[in-house]
Amino acid sequence: MFSSNVFVLWGVLSSCWGLRQDARVDEELARSPRPSKWGSLWPLPQRVATFDVSFKLAAASFQMLDGNGSSAGPSCSLLQDAYRRYDKYIFGGVKPERPRARDRRTDFPVLMGLQVLITDPEPECDQYPSVTSDESFQISLDLFLGLETFSQLVYEDDFGAKLVNWTQISDYPRFAHRGLLLDTSRHFLPVKVILANLETMAMNKFNVFHWHIVDDQSFPYMSRTFPDLSQKGAYHPYTHVYTPSDVKTIIEFARLRGIRVIPEFDTPGHTQSWGKGQAGLLTPCFAGSRPSGSFGPVNPILNSTYDFMRRLFREVAAVFPDDYVHLGGDEVDFTCWKSNPDIRTFMEQQGFGKNYSKLESLYIQRLLDIVSSTEKGSIIWQEVFDNGVKLKADALIHVWKGTGQQYRNEMANVTAAGYRALLSTPWYLNRIAYGQDWRGHYKADPQDFQGTAAQKKLVIGGEACLWGEYVDATNLTPRLWPRASAVAERLWSAQNVTDVDDAYDRLSSHRCRMLERGIPAEPLFSSFCPREFEGI
Amino acid sequence: MFSSNVFVLWGVLSSCWGLRQDARVDEELARSPRPSKWGSLWPLPQRVATFDVSFKLAAASFQMLDGNGSSAGPSCSLLQDAYRRYDKYIFGGVKPERPRARDRRTDFPVLMGLQVLITDPEPECDQYPSVTSDESFQISLDLFLGLETFSQLVYEDDFGAKLVNWTQISDYPRFAHRGLLLDTSRHFLPVKVILANLETMAMNKFNVFHWHIVDDQSFPYMSRTFPDLSQKGAYHPYTHVYTPSDVKTIIEFARLRGIRVIPEFDTPGHTQSWGKGQAGLLTPCFAGSRPSGSFGPVNPILNSTYDFMRRLFREVAAVFPDDYVHLGGDEVDFTCWKSNPDIRTFMEQQGFGKNYSKLESLYIQRLLDIVSSTEKGSIIWQEVFDNGVKLKADALIHVWKGTGQQYRNEMANVTAAGYRALLSTPWYLNRIAYGQDWRGHYKADPQDFQGTAAQKKLVIGGEACLWGEYVDATNLTPRLWPRASAVAERLWSAQNVTDVDDAYDRLSSHRCRMLERGIPAEPLFSSFCPREFEGI
Repeated sequence: MFSSNVFVLWGVLSSCWGLRQDARVDEELARSPRPSKWGSLWPLPQRVATFDVSFKLAAASFQMLDGNGSSAGPSCSLLQDAYRRYDKYIFGGVKPERPRARDRRTDFPVLMGLQVLITDPEPECDQYPSVTSDESFQISLDLFLGLETFSQLVYEDDFGAKLVNWTQISDYPRFAHRGLLLDTSRHFLPVKVILANLETMAMNKFNVFHWHIVDDQSFPYMSRTFPDLSQKGAYHPYTHVYTPSDVKTIIEFARLRGIRVIPEFDTPGHTQSWGKGQAGLLTPCFAGSRPSGSFGPVNPILNSTYDFMRRLFREVAAVFPDDYVHLGGDEVDFTCWKSNPDIRTFMEQQGFGKNYSKLESLYIQRLLDIVSSTEKGSIIWQEVFDNGVKLKADALIHVWKGTGQQYRNEMANVTAAGYRALLSTPWYLNRIAYGQDWRGHYKADPQDFQGTAAQKKLVIGGEACLWGEYVDATNLTPRLWPRASAVAERLWSAQNVTDVDDAYDRLSSHRCRMLERGIPAEPLFSSFCPREFEGI
Repeated sequence: MFSSNVFVLWGVLSSCWGLRQDARVDEELARSPRPSKWGSLWPLPQRVATFDVSFKLAAASFQMLDGNGSSAGPSCSLLQDAYRRYDKYIFGGVKPERPRARDRRTDFPVLMGLQVLITDPEPECDQYPSVTSDESFQISLDLFLGLETFSQLVYEDDFGAKLVNWTQISDYPRFAHRGLLLDTSRHFLPVKVILANLETMAMNKFNVFHWHIVDDQSFPYMSRTFPDLSQKGAYHPYTHVYTPSDVKTIIEFARLRGIRVIPEFDTPGHTQSWGKGQAGLLTPCFAGSRPSGSFGPVNPILNSTYDFMRRLFREVAAVFPDDYVHLGGDEVDFTCWKSNPDIRTFMEQQGFGKNYSKLESLYIQRLLDIVSSTEKGSIIWQEVFDNGVKLKADALIHVWKGTGQQYRNEMANVTAAGYRALLSTPWYLNRIAYGQDWRGHYKADPQDFQGTAAQKKLVIGGEACLWGEYVDATNLTPRLWPRASAVAERLWSAQNVTDVDDAYDRLSSHRCRMLERGIPAEPLFSSFCPREFEGI
């Protein structure tokens, strides 16, 4: 976003302030959270030095200001929006009027404000976040990320006074792609829910919203080119759809938080709902010599299929500004293709024998060409690579299958073939279990496989996935947070940040902070927060 | 509550109305909910006959009225409160003014109102619900339960008109004790959350709130007799406690919904938090010949312990009107008792040898006598029975341990010994798993064990338990509902109501109804509701 930024804290130093005690520790009980030496920072920055010197922050006078010579100033709405957001987080939305007669004692050093100095000659104030190579983040402190970290340094003393310790931080992400997948097909998610989760993503330094927008069950994306897709394929034609305006709102809300929005239009499988609004798109399945009335994957042998895809992805390319589109390509069931006599004839003509993977590859190959023509890069699930489809060098392979050893092998194979890889297998957060499963998520590492340094470099990150079969607006947010936060730290912090006990302490505080910001993040274990969630 | 009540629907029959279609059915996909022949009734009544004849309900003129000769009338606040509540559920809280000039066509038959005829000579309008023997429910249609069932019969046509089919129902519960345990010690639950779940319990015909109010982690019950217990033992002395007024509010809210409130004060184990506010209550543990500084279970060898318990349970008996108190008695760890030289001396004096179960039994025996003196019945976890403590004939044994075969054996043993039993083992809803685990909860049956008819009759019901280690206000409600609904139907409906497929269809509708009433009940599987949850 911004290749290098500087935060300057200014104030008057006159006394010291002790560490706060904010957690009751009872050694006889199962491990309760204890204060971490890193406070409540989450994810942990690359370099932190904290000094036992505190400053007071006065809500009425504290200011976030553009520094002298900053390349982004008052006209940068992105920045001003962020100031407003974090002012609310730091001071709880209440900014009292400065009283006429005020206490002029200066018993404590006061931090007057935060000076934000943007040094990037081209601060993308009105542009979208984009894929950036690892190196350019090495010395940067991203704008939002920096404000989030600053807000995490602020704490309250016993009298409710806002304090911040003298702290030096130098930070950058370990991986450039830190994603979260939400699925709006198995259950429709109201826009409000998506926005709340984008907000929470920013608190956790996630920077990619992978929007699994359509699937078998429903097609809530309202297409201008093919309005029947949602008209007939959504759960409801206007209460359970994302209008063009909804999509814009989501993309802009994400942009203001440094989050890219990558839509997934998964084909040729997972497309039952597409068939309702687009006759002839899906393969008619046969029972013996007659059509059974049911349909299979997208029909790969018709020119009309590719005409449709060309027009649809041209629209998608225009609606979604990100440089990448996720094309899916997973879990294609060949049963229906095998039952269809036209498909079988086509297979013979192509000399594919009984190898239906070749038919799938033919389809995906043509789709990749279509998407390339829209100037977008492609992300595809690992099956496409496994099936040997010829891919462009910039394709991203998304690994999601198998056991620990299987996905490590897959990461090794993908990167050995020279492709960049994203990992999701250990982070299927929809698969819930009793107890602290976040510890397993935390321990998984995308670079933990046999390979050369060059191979490891091809791992650009990963994504936490919350598939939607069992979640909707009722339970999504508490089920996702703070479990996804464990993945967020794994993708952001240094490789050697692996102390699960310390993570437990910081994450417990971080989840209470999310609560205070209105997000119903669930507890890690028996515990309490100073202010509990107010909803139900 | 009311031993026999009659509901009369009156109106004008003039035409027929077809069945509504409220679920999209797509056979190609994994099983989506289909309309059940029982509509959305949950739990299923004992006897239902539905006729294909519908009546319209006009929000502006529909009335719930006390029938001629009803023994409970306008002065019965319990009844009037229920009318108001169900009017809101049926008409969505919006009761439009009757327009001056209104459409006088009578194309459809109109149901003018619901006549409620209470025939019980002593309708407990101002009293608390109580334990009632199975038989007295055999011909009753409990007031709230009846209104809930009536509200479940109301549906909307495509134009939003409220309709109800001509239906005859005769209903009564299979088990008298249909409980839900919530734990306010591992995490504090705001009063608002408890009330919302009492409301949802009523929608599911649960009638016992088992309030596991204190435990090792915190003591949020504010005692007038021993204020230090919560002052020092709660997570916070005033934000994380239940004041006497809070407790009254909860009991009254429950009473108005036909729900009993049974508090659990679990001893002698699970009492770490008690020790903070009551010096000398817990056993000092020893490391060799010196006190280690940590404490074990309640100290059973001191008279001061029993003086304390006598005063505490006298207060509890006065605060909680129900005839029963739950005394816990589970999971007593003998390690600390074994380390303490005074306890060892006492063991020798009593001739207990090394059998610390005998010491535990001595304690429980004395506690049971104390509670009996307060005119309350006792419920205890199964260990107390397993350890051979002499129990009063009216004690209730609460079975919670073991595998399927183990708990069936325990149910057989408890009832063979002539005690009444409650089952919870298969209904530990805190133990979450991926997928539709409600099906397992639904299939479990409290009378599914080897025993005589007389033994089966001693099973008075069961309880769904949501222990609090991993739940608080953020995630409790969606995690509990509709999973607890599966238990509710098992405890209410006839033994032969075991069609899981039909249950799936009705429960899907029932969960959408809970949503419409503002309760974030989570989805069973890929699906949608006409109006999705609005919160986050």
